[in-house]
Amino acid sequence: MGSSFGQLFRITTWGESHGGGVGVVIDGCPPRIELSEEDIQRDLDRRRPGQSKIVTPRDEADRCRILSGVFEGCTLGTPISILVMNKDARPEAYSEMKATYRPSHADFTYEAKYGIRNWQGGGRASARETVGRVAAGAVAKKVLSKLSPRPLEIVAYVTQIQEVSARIDRSSVRTEDVERNAVRCPDEAAAELMTALIQSVRDEGDSLGGVIECVIRGVPPGLGEPVFDKLEADLAKAMLSLPASKGFEIGSGFAATRMKGSEHNDPFEVRDGKVRTTTNNSGGVQGGISNGEDIFFRVAFKPTSTIARDQKTVTASHEETTLAARGRHDPCVLPRAVPIVEAMAALVLCDHALRQKAISDFGK
Amino acid sequence: MGSSFGQLFRITTWGESHGGGVGVVIDGCPPRIELSEEDIQRDLDRRRPGQSKIVTPRDEADRCRILSGVFEGCTLGTPISILVMNKDARPEAYSEMKATYRPSHADFTYEAKYGIRNWQGGGRASARETVGRVAAGAVAKKVLSKLSPRPLEIVAYVTQIQEVSARIDRSSVRTEDVERNAVRCPDEAAAELMTALIQSVRDEGDSLGGVIECVIRGVPPGLGEPVFDKLEADLAKAMLSLPASKGFEIGSGFAATRMKGSEHNDPFEVRDGKVRTTTNNSGGVQGGISNGEDIFFRVAFKPTSTIARDQKTVTASHEETTLAARGRHDPCVLPRAVPIVEAMAALVLCDHALRQKAISDFGK
Amino acid sequence: MGSSFGQLFRITTWGESHGGGVGVVIDGCPPRIELSEEDIQRDLDRRRPGQSKIVTPRDEADRCRILSGVFEGCTLGTPISILVMNKDARPEAYSEMKATYRPSHADFTYEAKYGIRNWQGGGRASARETVGRVAAGAVAKKVLSKLSPRPLEIVAYVTQIQEVSARIDRSSVRTEDVERNAVRCPDEAAAELMTALIQSVRDEGDSLGGVIECVIRGVPPGLGEPVFDKLEADLAKAMLSLPASKGFEIGSGFAATRMKGSEHNDPFEVRDGKVRTTTNNSGGVQGGISNGEDIFFRVAFKPTSTIARDQKTVTASHEETTLAARGRHDPCVLPRAVPIVEAMAALVLCDHALRQKAISDFGK
Amino acid sequence: MGSSFGQLFRITTWGESHGGGVGVVIDGCPPRIELSEEDIQRDLDRRRPGQSKIVTPRDEADRCRILSGVFEGCTLGTPISILVMNKDARPEAYSEMKATYRPSHADFTYEAKYGIRNWQGGGRASARETVGRVAAGAVAKKVLSKLSPRPLEIVAYVTQIQEVSARIDRSSVRTEDVERNAVRCPDEAAAELMTALIQSVRDEGDSLGGVIECVIRGVPPGLGEPVFDKLEADLAKAMLSLPASKGFEIGSGFAATRMKGSEHNDPFEVRDGKVRTTTNNSGGVQGGISNGEDIFFRVAFKPTSTIARDQKTVTASHEETTLAARGRHDPCVLPRAVPIVEAMAALVLCDHALRQKAISDFGK
Repeated sequence: MGSSFGQLFRITTWGESHGGGVGVVIDGCPPRIELSEEDIQRDLDRRRPGQSKIVTPRDEADRCRILSGVFEGCTLGTPISILVMNKDARPEAYSEMKATYRPSHADFTYEAKYGIRNWQGGGRASARETVGRVAAGAVAKKVLSKLSPRPLEIVAYVTQIQEVSARIDRSSVRTEDVERNAVRCPDEAAAELMTALIQSVRDEGDSLGGVIECVIRGVPPGLGEPVFDKLEADLAKAMLSLPASKGFEIGSGFAATRMKGSEHNDPFEVRDGKVRTTTNNSGGVQGGISNGEDIFFRVAFKPTSTIARDQKTVTASHEETTLAARGRHDPCVLPRAVPIVEAMAALVLCDHALRQKAISDFGK
Repeated sequence: MGSSFGQLFRITTWGESHGGGVGVVIDGCPPRIELSEEDIQRDLDRRRPGQSKIVTPRDEADRCRILSGVFEGCTLGTPISILVMNKDARPEAYSEMKATYRPSHADFTYEAKYGIRNWQGGGRASARETVGRVAAGAVAKKVLSKLSPRPLEIVAYVTQIQEVSARIDRSSVRTEDVERNAVRCPDEAAAELMTALIQSVRDEGDSLGGVIECVIRGVPPGLGEPVFDKLEADLAKAMLSLPASKGFEIGSGFAATRMKGSEHNDPFEVRDGKVRTTTNNSGGVQGGISNGEDIFFRVAFKPTSTIARDQKTVTASHEETTLAARGRHDPCVLPRAVPIVEAMAALVLCDHALRQKAISDFGK
Repeated sequence: MGSSFGQLFRITTWGESHGGGVGVVIDGCPPRIELSEEDIQRDLDRRRPGQSKIVTPRDEADRCRILSGVFEGCTLGTPISILVMNKDARPEAYSEMKATYRPSHADFTYEAKYGIRNWQGGGRASARETVGRVAAGAVAKKVLSKLSPRPLEIVAYVTQIQEVSARIDRSSVRTEDVERNAVRCPDEAAAELMTALIQSVRDEGDSLGGVIECVIRGVPPGLGEPVFDKLEADLAKAMLSLPASKGFEIGSGFAATRMKGSEHNDPFEVRDGKVRTTTNNSGGVQGGISNGEDIFFRVAFKPTSTIARDQKTVTASHEETTLAARGRHDPCVLPRAVPIVEAMAALVLCDHALRQKAISDFGK
Repeated sequence: MGSSFGQLFRITTWGESHGGGVGVVIDGCPPRIELSEEDIQRDLDRRRPGQSKIVTPRDEADRCRILSGVFEGCTLGTPISILVMNKDARPEAYSEMKATYRPSHADFTYEAKYGIRNWQGGGRASARETVGRVAAGAVAKKVLSKLSPRPLEIVAYVTQIQEVSARIDRSSVRTEDVERNAVRCPDEAAAELMTALIQSVRDEGDSLGGVIECVIRGVPPGLGEPVFDKLEADLAKAMLSLPASKGFEIGSGFAATRMKGSEHNDPFEVRDGKVRTTTNNSGGVQGGISNGEDIFFRVAFKPTSTIARDQKTVTASHEETTLAARGRHDPCVLPRAVPIVEAMAALVLCDHALRQKAISDFGK
């Protein structure tokens, strides 16, 4: 269990990195939304390996196929099944992993949990599983564009790689700014430093982590379900369910812990005839419900566990050994994680938009 | 929707701060666990108002009553309904809130979402709702003590208030160390500074935030359900569902973003005949599944929104006004949030322990 | 687990027949619906014991109390907790049941499942649990009256007791016809026979079963979620979850098995500008989705298991013995089951109405 | 929504009759169960079209492919994705259906619900969707064979076609008896009459319904979750979710309504050292929980809606017209529904077996 996400817009991903393929079934997608394989492919292409010099060279075209739920270009309201076959799988590259636990990977824990694991390339724990998330996220965006009274924009970007931090105007940054470079950091100067850093660390056989920030503009007030399914709670779960993520903060986040209430509180004012806040330390969510301001949050990613250096570890039979990665891998997951963060954000918002739709406009 | 948490050990909380009462129904509690009202009261007493000089003076004994699911001192396997009546409710103290939105509270967003709100003391958004969580958490701990092969300890504590940080040995800190002072920080020197700081800021009519850390010892390897219900994902959701929380990090957390893979990876070794990690940057979870090491995470809490100072805000009819809190409140939520963090951690673990129990020991 | 019902309008019942009380928490009720304790009490009074000569004399006023979720006469959108305390519990009347399994009761199976049971009066398996269902059903009806474009009527009635069958015009029968007599059969002549039969069989220390039919008028086309949550599937589950029910059929039901397709199919026609069916063997549901015609179904109830005659049975220690009921009980559950069937039907419809609301009006 | 079934052994089916294919994702399957495509194919072959003279001639090999969740012949504990491509789809045969509603089909209701439908061959409402159920049921049987302390047998069979009823010894009938003839009725004399009847009615361009009975032997006491997820409630939902089903009864069923309590109650006795019932009117379930006796139930199926005769109906633009089926179809669904009923029963039992496993063996 645990491969489904969402209450009303509910996705179920499946697939291992080495096996028939990976995919997703979306149940609860509203009918009569225009949807084509191209809509999905666009986001998959941003996630796929081999797209630039700083990501893994694994060669997967990741062509998606919609097998159900769409008819004559529109959603039917029935489950949408999306399939991506695995192509460039080289299980032989992973033969050492059969008996040896890679440090900070999930080999040992999958073995402990299930008593069995697909040792070829990470199996279900591989980031390849996120193909299904990105595909579903693309559908969620289409639904949101129908549901939302004003344009809803979800823009994620790399804001920090190791010690290199970017300066980004959160209120205006757009997807085209992000896509301008391979590292997906809209501060060009920082992006160049980051790229150089990633290449240099890769050449050392090492890896890097960093921070992705995501801003969402145009969310109407009222999304989020107290008390457990608060919007930030579901976003936090979504982000911590991503491979390699170690932290989440919304709005002021950990910085809030050093402020006083009089500094942190967001005064209300009336702007353009609407109730707005003067500042936005809340990050667009108050009491678990969107307040109409920009929602923004940050996700911490650890350095990729797969490194080309010798590391101490043990075998399944408890013998000490050393291991150096041979499979293809990313020296830094963040550039490819950007569309994944956006996809998860879209899934959370779409689900909450439908949940709110179910109970709104009563009692008038 | 949104008032239930957990898949197999499933709780549903209900209640507003001013109304009949607050409570919880627990469905899925295994049978034949010894359980008394005293087991629950112990944790409720750690959460209740009025317990020390640095928390709200609201006078609520918070006596719980078990209405079902327990017979002759043991759980029946049927739903456990726990009720705490509201006593010291003074709705008149909140009359101003009827028309005016308190900054950084949920007044505006509840109105936006539901078109109606109980304006007396925060209603459902009040931290009083967490009474049900703490009660259920106490039951979860009893279940875990039966399920776990070795003693399972969940210890949360305040590790930072504004600029005051504590030094705490995470591997050895125990509940009695935490309970030694009102601020629930086991570093006595830091605790004194924190207490003085809270009192001084309260006297200024202001409020403070900080960080709570939680360590869990004795969790067997194998808990957590990839890919969405990873242990850290469910912990993140649990913590971000708490009032005033703004961030979550597990293990190395945000600090991981500045490390290289070769520094961050936790080598495996064999210790006492078991596969263990030499370091624990993973925070006890790898690939979403517990690895048997201590689980630890931190939660960021913002400064209490309720402050006694004049703040700019608007009324429901869009007039600008100023507001100063008059209701009783905590100048800093962290001391009372400690048992709440523990309760949510216990709920997550109990749910995952039952989920794992359902699928384990196959194929032997 | 298993004490919750519904996806969006989700209820959780709790309570044993002898213990603190019984109740329900409703999560997902839309906001701004007028609701009072009287709205709920009305249906509880139809269900409560002691209301006529042909039901159990247990004296329970069954006064409900709303503890949360309602403010100034309207729902808040937050969980509604409804409590009914147990009053006339006489556990001593059940002391024999401590060690002896009553035939066709749940004593043995609860023991087998949980290894423990509340042996006082049936515990959780008591029909007293349905108090929470009826209370929640009353709320569901209020929501449906807001949601439905035309008046939605749910009318259940007894149509058969043992060999006595009633003749009832399904298309016109109304609640006031049903409530005219204690047996809740709107065919007065049949009702008199049924009443006499129940009294005579009760005097023999025996019990009776029968059939309840329910008709629902005014359901718009479009409710029901293929493929597993078809409207008839959720109705069937709802009805088979009732104590003593043994069968369910919708529309033509088991009689359909003797018809040819050319006889059974419901031709479409246009009536009053709407697509209608000429006949209604489908019972208002086609492909799991309501088609706008009257929905009707029948539920089979077995004779009450509790009888005053000596019966062979065994003790928990496997000794053969005989047992005759001493607790108060109904010689025939059907009269009191009528409001329970209506409540369950209302819960199913309300849930599906909200589910449909979430996905409708797209793509226009 | 509505395409998922089960709480712990949770399946999600997808697919339309004419489109890429049909399939299922199983989440929650325990690890280390031996599983091959052949295990699944065996049951699919019993369901597939074209297998005999009395079923539809649509030519679908229905070869399944396992795309994930199985490694080296064993389940991994991760989601199992099973795919069957559509082959012999002839959408042109259905062109009339584009504008015309087939009587007693789901064309009108899908249009009413979704505002769009795949008019080719029934789309999602086609019985072709049950391919996924049968595939998942085959996996459920494998899990049950591991879980169950004694052999668990699920045997369904046709017991009535229109007026022809079979005589079958429920306690001893086995799958090989059922598979001996094309109609899947283990009473050979009745089977011959049924076959002749189906052929004759098909030649008239008409169709037939009937009753399938299912007996389950070897279920241990304790499965079923009061109060809503009673075993019979989940079985009823499972069966009423099948295309063309109109009724469900368990044990004595509707016949119970004519019995007295003294006739209907099942006395307990001790047999072979176990608590057993002398009779089995309960059908193996008491209070929603299995009692260790054989579980048996019956499902009513209406005559196939697709008939070759002219029928009155209307078009989407509200014009009256007549329609005669041209697509290939079954004159009687029951022979092919037998493995589907078994599959749904296996899914219910497997889910409940895992749910019980999660809470059992406590308090020892």
